[in-house]
Amino acid sequence: MKTSGNFTRLVQKHLEAVEQLMRHQADSYQPDIGSALDILLSSGGKRIRPTLSLLVGSMLHADIDRLITLSAAIELLHTATLVHDDLIDGALLRRGNPTLNSQWSAGATVLTGDFLFARAARLAADTDSLPVIKLFSQTLAVIVNGEIAQLFAGRCLPDKEKYFQRIYAKTASLMETAATGAAMISAAGEAVIEQMRQFGYALGMAFQIIDDILDYTGNQGQLGKPVGGDLRQGLITLPAIYYIEGHPGENEAKALAIGKCLQDEEIANFVEKVRTSEAVARAHGDARNFVEQALVHLRDQPAGEYRQALESLAYYIVEREL
Amino acid sequence: MKTSGNFTRLVQKHLEAVEQLMRHQADSYQPDIGSALDILLSSGGKRIRPTLSLLVGSMLHADIDRLITLSAAIELLHTATLVHDDLIDGALLRRGNPTLNSQWSAGATVLTGDFLFARAARLAADTDSLPVIKLFSQTLAVIVNGEIAQLFAGRCLPDKEKYFQRIYAKTASLMETAATGAAMISAAGEAVIEQMRQFGYALGMAFQIIDDILDYTGNQGQLGKPVGGDLRQGLITLPAIYYIEGHPGENEAKALAIGKCLQDEEIANFVEKVRTSEAVARAHGDARNFVEQALVHLRDQPAGEYRQALESLAYYIVEREL
Repeated sequence: MKTSGNFTRLVQKHLEAVEQLMRHQADSYQPDIGSALDILLSSGGKRIRPTLSLLVGSMLHADIDRLITLSAAIELLHTATLVHDDLIDGALLRRGNPTLNSQWSAGATVLTGDFLFARAARLAADTDSLPVIKLFSQTLAVIVNGEIAQLFAGRCLPDKEKYFQRIYAKTASLMETAATGAAMISAAGEAVIEQMRQFGYALGMAFQIIDDILDYTGNQGQLGKPVGGDLRQGLITLPAIYYIEGHPGENEAKALAIGKCLQDEEIANFVEKVRTSEAVARAHGDARNFVEQALVHLRDQPAGEYRQALESLAYYIVEREL
Repeated sequence: MKTSGNFTRLVQKHLEAVEQLMRHQADSYQPDIGSALDILLSSGGKRIRPTLSLLVGSMLHADIDRLITLSAAIELLHTATLVHDDLIDGALLRRGNPTLNSQWSAGATVLTGDFLFARAARLAADTDSLPVIKLFSQTLAVIVNGEIAQLFAGRCLPDKEKYFQRIYAKTASLMETAATGAAMISAAGEAVIEQMRQFGYALGMAFQIIDDILDYTGNQGQLGKPVGGDLRQGLITLPAIYYIEGHPGENEAKALAIGKCLQDEEIANFVEKVRTSEAVARAHGDARNFVEQALVHLRDQPAGEYRQALESLAYYIVEREL
């Protein structure tokens, strides 16, 4: 089943409301914050997280206004973490656009991120659901804790267990919260909430694995940033982990296995080897397994166009741009 | 009425519980975060904010566990903002101790602050009071907005209106929230909540004015940082504003009136002039007025040792270290 983003059709109108709500978060504050927010939101992004929460919530008949509020909270939290991430990584481009930190001072960038955290927290509070609010702050702690772990961890070390922990913190935790939170503000019971948690989790894991594959197999035009960026930062993602496992005798694999980072001139070569190897298919297989796992948790949910759209979203996640 | 901190006696035990609760916020996360938190909390501070919320809440018979949770949320939020502030200002010392950013990378410092925001938000959520949670995220937005305004505003410009806006955002907003939040989790009605808001507001304004006076009249030993630090950063606080108003013919006043920052060698001289001038007494008079205003809002609250302690706290704020 090949799909390409038609899952957004059902929630297009609500996605626009989410966008509006996010844009209004700087109203009545410093105009410079409004400019920053406009730039950040205009640079796009797939809006996968709000799409996920809108679809899950609609499937479970949640109140649409609270759902829009939750979705805006989630996407704004995501945006805030990206602002600080890009600053810390010194990234100059995201989705083909200059990052905030490439144009503003570090101080202004830190504070803009903080402001977005504050407004995201306020939006979460506006869902009027204590479980959602608690989950939301918990998720921020998990995301940041993961980034700190990454900062203090050894660079250039292939470690599959740590890799899965890292992508959980980085991506799956928030997608889990998008799905769980949407279920929490519906009338669904604990069992359904738990299924939606597992659905969001598995979807998020698949999503990040594919992102990490694309960092090898994509091109700068598609990615909006240079290929092989993870490796350049010393991050050994799943395709590289599998390549190193499969080619233990090669020099690059030997260096990385003991945490020795590659030289600049070795990186392009290694990226080329990984992208044309069986390691990509193996990583892709893992992503597909996560999607299959996600679909299991959808099976018992109310049938209809929303569940169908969530299935399409799941397939899209592993099939995009490959 | 001369007092010196005996207002903490009544809530000493609860302040220790607040301290414990804050220290446990890094449990089950990266050990590096725990170390950072220990360092941040050990460097002390007067714990004025939790003292304020504990006293207000106790006076209004709020549940003590929720009060401790709220107080920890407020002090942790305060700590988080200081971590980012010190990074942005490049401050090396706070309360005589090395700042986090003087020892850690900028990235680790940003993320530690983010983590503390997350845990503060979680503690606020644990009060189970939606009004408190909303107020809390609102306050973070106000604080950060104020810092951004300061970043984009002209430096070295004496502007009394902007000064009062700035100290509201920087200090009074959180003290207002400490008092208001404590009232919100008690059974007090809207009128009492509003009086506590005004009480916290006025106390916070007085507190920051005195801090700004001490930046001129204190010594490095007392302050835990160099004297005249605000001026060095281009911040024209109330004592300087009054001095400039009173001595329009002097060179420094003329320079600052048009937003021209002083040279390094002029700063020590200007600080000496301000500290020995009538401008200090005038600023001090404003702080005393705010305290008087604060006391008015206490008048109708339940009489007893907690109200008395709040009165002592108010007097202490204008009399400390002078």
